[in-house]
Amino acid sequence: MSDMGVTYPKGFLAAGIAGGIKKNGAKDIALVFSPSPCTCAGVFTRNIVKGHSLQLSQKHAAEGVAKAVFINSGNANACIGEQGNYDALAICEMLGSALGCPPNMILPGSTGVIGVPLPMGKIARGINKALDHMSEDGGAAAAQAIMTTDTHPKESGAEIIIDDKPVRIGAMAKGSGMIYPNMATMISVITTDIKIKKHQAKALIKEVADLTFNRVCVDGDTSVCDMVLFMANGKSNVSYDQCPEQFKNALVDVCTKISRMLAKDGEGATKLLNIDIKGANTAEDAKLIAHAIAKSPLCKTAAFGQDANWGRLLTAAGYSGAQFDPNLCDVYIGDLITCKSGTAIIFDEEAALEILKKDEITYTIDLNQGTESYNMWTCDMSVEYIHINADYRT
Amino acid sequence: MSDMGVTYPKGFLAAGIAGGIKKNGAKDIALVFSPSPCTCAGVFTRNIVKGHSLQLSQKHAAEGVAKAVFINSGNANACIGEQGNYDALAICEMLGSALGCPPNMILPGSTGVIGVPLPMGKIARGINKALDHMSEDGGAAAAQAIMTTDTHPKESGAEIIIDDKPVRIGAMAKGSGMIYPNMATMISVITTDIKIKKHQAKALIKEVADLTFNRVCVDGDTSVCDMVLFMANGKSNVSYDQCPEQFKNALVDVCTKISRMLAKDGEGATKLLNIDIKGANTAEDAKLIAHAIAKSPLCKTAAFGQDANWGRLLTAAGYSGAQFDPNLCDVYIGDLITCKSGTAIIFDEEAALEILKKDEITYTIDLNQGTESYNMWTCDMSVEYIHINADYRT
Repeated sequence: MSDMGVTYPKGFLAAGIAGGIKKNGAKDIALVFSPSPCTCAGVFTRNIVKGHSLQLSQKHAAEGVAKAVFINSGNANACIGEQGNYDALAICEMLGSALGCPPNMILPGSTGVIGVPLPMGKIARGINKALDHMSEDGGAAAAQAIMTTDTHPKESGAEIIIDDKPVRIGAMAKGSGMIYPNMATMISVITTDIKIKKHQAKALIKEVADLTFNRVCVDGDTSVCDMVLFMANGKSNVSYDQCPEQFKNALVDVCTKISRMLAKDGEGATKLLNIDIKGANTAEDAKLIAHAIAKSPLCKTAAFGQDANWGRLLTAAGYSGAQFDPNLCDVYIGDLITCKSGTAIIFDEEAALEILKKDEITYTIDLNQGTESYNMWTCDMSVEYIHINADYRT
Repeated sequence: MSDMGVTYPKGFLAAGIAGGIKKNGAKDIALVFSPSPCTCAGVFTRNIVKGHSLQLSQKHAAEGVAKAVFINSGNANACIGEQGNYDALAICEMLGSALGCPPNMILPGSTGVIGVPLPMGKIARGINKALDHMSEDGGAAAAQAIMTTDTHPKESGAEIIIDDKPVRIGAMAKGSGMIYPNMATMISVITTDIKIKKHQAKALIKEVADLTFNRVCVDGDTSVCDMVLFMANGKSNVSYDQCPEQFKNALVDVCTKISRMLAKDGEGATKLLNIDIKGANTAEDAKLIAHAIAKSPLCKTAAFGQDANWGRLLTAAGYSGAQFDPNLCDVYIGDLITCKSGTAIIFDEEAALEILKKDEITYTIDLNQGTESYNMWTCDMSVEYIHINADYRT
């Protein structure tokens, strides 16, 4: 647990409380609030099916100004019909009224089971409880409240000093199943006290999500409720224009840490896998190969089994849709070369096992055909993944 | 076990013997032989990485005439470099010499571990043993010898009567992991005693594979050694031109049975899943949705858990890349509707459980937007799938 979450930047309050939505009594309502209006931006799932809360958040975020983020876990508020839209709006109205702002300055999010109406009585009581508990130390509780099958909360933060003034970034995220890139791959809230314009925030979060969140894969399934929300309240009195590179680097750093946490805490995961594709003719080829490996149940189960089965890596590359000559490819497990120029070589199986026993492994394919590269973070696929997902609803 | 395998049509001999390639002493060399030359055709993996035996088979099949198919299990003869090509050719030379035909009338195939050279001493002795064991009743033994992680051999056959003459089709297949369509998804050998021209055979097997084998998905991984070989020796004295529709229908029937067997015997599978997509605007949309569901670990683990989690089906449809309005979609588990017009409805959970307990389940999404449809066969994903694949090489 870090103390560098969403309340790390100046001027943010947060709460995480148990509202009775989750059957096990765990925290399930998170609130993040900045009394000063924030520039906001977001990236949202590209799934055609979209949760009702997410749809409203997307609409509100498009206006570029927000004061609060509300997230409940335990229920996705998805595939409910018109009632789902009313419920999301009711949440914004309740919170707007309590926080003294219009409902369109509230960004709602929901995550959990699809197709069950939100328990609005519990939500209403939960909102009041969350308002009572809001504090400058509430980041950690909020990070706990957005968890679903996560085994631990995920927070990160960074501080940079610009003209002797501290600028801070804080982040929390949830998500360990139904995670696949090319959208905002989970729910994450990023707060900062930098001053930034709406169009800058929008472009920045899109660019950084492509470098970080969109490179995480747990199971290839793209959720209907996933989003990254970015809230900047300007309280540092430092403007983004003073330090665009420094701020971006700090944001990439925070989002990279969060992304690695998400992959490492993938459902049932025992290992973080870094997929590193180099020497491609085009970046798109490298990306296709990285995606194919990151999604392959065979590559992921071999990692779980600590089996140096590099043939599955090359096989996944081969069917990825990328264009390349397999006879030029080298395949590495950690720093151990296992296949040279597309041909098996004799390698030290014991050295391979030592590498595969670790809780973080890098798989590298060097195509030796160009200069383009791409990387992804994923996890192994274990027996526990099946247990978690075979009985999720019940 | 059926007696309608590759020796069911007139004029085919086969053998399946243990050559010591598999560590456990099981059968691992299969031979199918027609003393009369056959018109042959094949469909081959679209993986860029291709096994050495498969590459040679593809070359020989392109010539359109063959007498024998040789398949070893236990070793894929893939990613070995030039030695792999020499070994595949040596097999064809040994067999051609013994069977009295040029090497290019032998179609070799290998399936098993990637990156380990073929044990050619064992192979040479195994070829002699197989030649000794060839018989008109050898189809079942051949079907056993091509198995890898299959739990049982797969055979099917059909007979049609044309002008009072019987025309027969026999088939065997292997494959229960690394199976994913848009290529010949596993190794299958189809024999028939019909008379058919080369270009007809080629077009027919392509069309039928698209309707059958290419609709099977176990794990989304496309192997480097997969192929369907079709051998027609003309011994029925019936020509394809006399009965193109009847023969095609019989072939589709045989290949459908084999495809369903492959899906049902997917690694670790406890159930066959029929994915049935209807009412799409385009066939491509229906296909995209069927593929997304068939590949989704979340949909497949829910089936294993007998969980009526229709939200995961709609979610997979949503990220499939298909264009559709989710608010028109109905989702069925068996004949039980669980989601109407994109909205959850209350359904009888006990009735759903009764459906989900069966060893065959149909998931249907009716998009209600057009008239196009697509179907696929897949299986659930179980704890056993992980066990099988975590330790495959060792």
